[in-house]
Amino acid sequence: MKDVRWGIAGCGKISHDFTNALTFNKSNVVACAARSETSSKRFAETFGIPKHYGGYDGLLEDGEVDVVYIGTIHTTHCELVMKALDKGKHVLCEKPIGMNGREVRKMVALAKEKNLFLMEGMWTRCFPATRKIASLLETGELGEVITCTADLGFSIPFEVKRLYELEMGGGGLLDLGVYPLAWLLLAFGDQELKSVNACASLHESGADMTGVITLRFGKEGVGSASYSSRSETQKELHINCTKGSIRVRGCWSSHTPERVEVRRDEAGEADVFEFPIEKNFPIPMNFGNSEGFVNECRHVEECLRGGKLESNFWSLQETLKSHDIVDEIRKMLGVTYPQDQE
Amino acid sequence: MKDVRWGIAGCGKISHDFTNALTFNKSNVVACAARSETSSKRFAETFGIPKHYGGYDGLLEDGEVDVVYIGTIHTTHCELVMKALDKGKHVLCEKPIGMNGREVRKMVALAKEKNLFLMEGMWTRCFPATRKIASLLETGELGEVITCTADLGFSIPFEVKRLYELEMGGGGLLDLGVYPLAWLLLAFGDQELKSVNACASLHESGADMTGVITLRFGKEGVGSASYSSRSETQKELHINCTKGSIRVRGCWSSHTPERVEVRRDEAGEADVFEFPIEKNFPIPMNFGNSEGFVNECRHVEECLRGGKLESNFWSLQETLKSHDIVDEIRKMLGVTYPQDQE
Repeated sequence: MKDVRWGIAGCGKISHDFTNALTFNKSNVVACAARSETSSKRFAETFGIPKHYGGYDGLLEDGEVDVVYIGTIHTTHCELVMKALDKGKHVLCEKPIGMNGREVRKMVALAKEKNLFLMEGMWTRCFPATRKIASLLETGELGEVITCTADLGFSIPFEVKRLYELEMGGGGLLDLGVYPLAWLLLAFGDQELKSVNACASLHESGADMTGVITLRFGKEGVGSASYSSRSETQKELHINCTKGSIRVRGCWSSHTPERVEVRRDEAGEADVFEFPIEKNFPIPMNFGNSEGFVNECRHVEECLRGGKLESNFWSLQETLKSHDIVDEIRKMLGVTYPQDQE
Repeated sequence: MKDVRWGIAGCGKISHDFTNALTFNKSNVVACAARSETSSKRFAETFGIPKHYGGYDGLLEDGEVDVVYIGTIHTTHCELVMKALDKGKHVLCEKPIGMNGREVRKMVALAKEKNLFLMEGMWTRCFPATRKIASLLETGELGEVITCTADLGFSIPFEVKRLYELEMGGGGLLDLGVYPLAWLLLAFGDQELKSVNACASLHESGADMTGVITLRFGKEGVGSASYSSRSETQKELHINCTKGSIRVRGCWSSHTPERVEVRRDEAGEADVFEFPIEKNFPIPMNFGNSEGFVNECRHVEECLRGGKLESNFWSLQETLKSHDIVDEIRKMLGVTYPQDQE
């Protein structure tokens, strides 16, 4: 595939930001679709997209579309991903790609059956700062990872119902908690997961709002992932090892990292690696640091051009692992979605 | 009590640092004692203390001593505190004041019976930066506390047996974890404790090394306290509220805070309050920031001069609460001390 041709499913805020990044990257976006044609028409005009559809079927059957980006609400992801794969499209789907591990297994199985690319949009993994951290950990030069602490919290009003209503896939864990959780999976890599612990506050609807996940790995690794939809938190990442540490701090650091501090000696100076996000976009973004989506656009195009069927930055195995952990935590918290009933 | 006359029980590293602070503060230290007279003699010479004892009985019976500072190994605290109270001495005992809640209850009961001052040396609570945070939280100006995250971790070699052997009271929770735990108790104040969760890695001896404690408070508070004896950690404190946040960062911040950042608007500038520790001591300290002990010296002397029987910065009720939580956590972790068998 030389020129990757994108189709966009969903014309809401997150699709806006992703498509804005595609446009900035001079990627080829050939069509977009939303439930209402009014929305998709406006979206097409904003980004100069040649074709737009009301409803998703037209887009998924469009022979000019190679890969579909799915940016609709969580609860619709599985159905749309399955349809897209069924129509022979490669897929990048926003996180969470499904509401539970069962949905994810279905999608992964179909992608493998159809020999199509499938990726959950854990965009943090595509940031150069994240790749730097991954390669630092691979060398083992900081010794054994003992603790990893990551958090992500925003003060999101109760009016944003998709966050607080179970019917809409609400809950802080699925929306925010998966980011710090992904950091724990990166930090401890292939080490065996020994135990999962969690506690959270629940909204009266039953959706979780603020929580802490604690995972034990291997011989003596302890990871802690915190999230909140009720308060801005520090949004940081700390990986503490026997011979040094990695810190990512600053505004929105833990999911859109731009600066990595590496210490080999606690008292000494840190080595600082800067990967500033290019902010010079003609169309403004809805969410902070969404310009970093460019990294994900490029990564997916590279994968597709290379004929890969999954991302090596956020593999399908990791996607499954993350969803299985989320399922286990939800059981502990008593958070159940309609999708959990098969 | 006009001139508070101190006696020092234990002449090890921590007693050295505390007595160094007393000396710097021009406090009146009248006697010291250690198991071996050689040690107490050397210690007396270092600080110009008039009397020294081999064994603790002489010190505890010394009519010139008003208050005893106990800086021996954890496992001996209860017995020495009980003896000191029995001999009519006020007591400041290093943390942990006892090995479990049962020991603490005994000591608190005796102190009340004898009308004597008793305090567990949670020195962090006496720092001006901590008092600033306490008063900020009291006003409620930052809204409701949603999360509090604190950690304390040092890379302590296995050779330091008192940290890794249960017979010596070893374990990261008792030695280090009690500091971040105390921050959670401060942040959530009088809110009802709803649940206790914990996980930790254990040494082959059975002592805990690295752990995370998660506590739920009141309607939607979630606190997370991390500790490690196996890795330097970030040593920070983050209190995130509905209308702002409090951050304490920098070297050794979370137990010896010197700088408080207060944000009322996530994007805006922080109000920074600095409380630098006076470092100009003629005799060097063993541990980082031990100069901050001066705050505790002064606080105890003020309490005693004011005729108080407990600290208002770290009350006996809080001491008990903290020990009861530690006991509950130890049960979860399976960490048992010889002292747990009555």
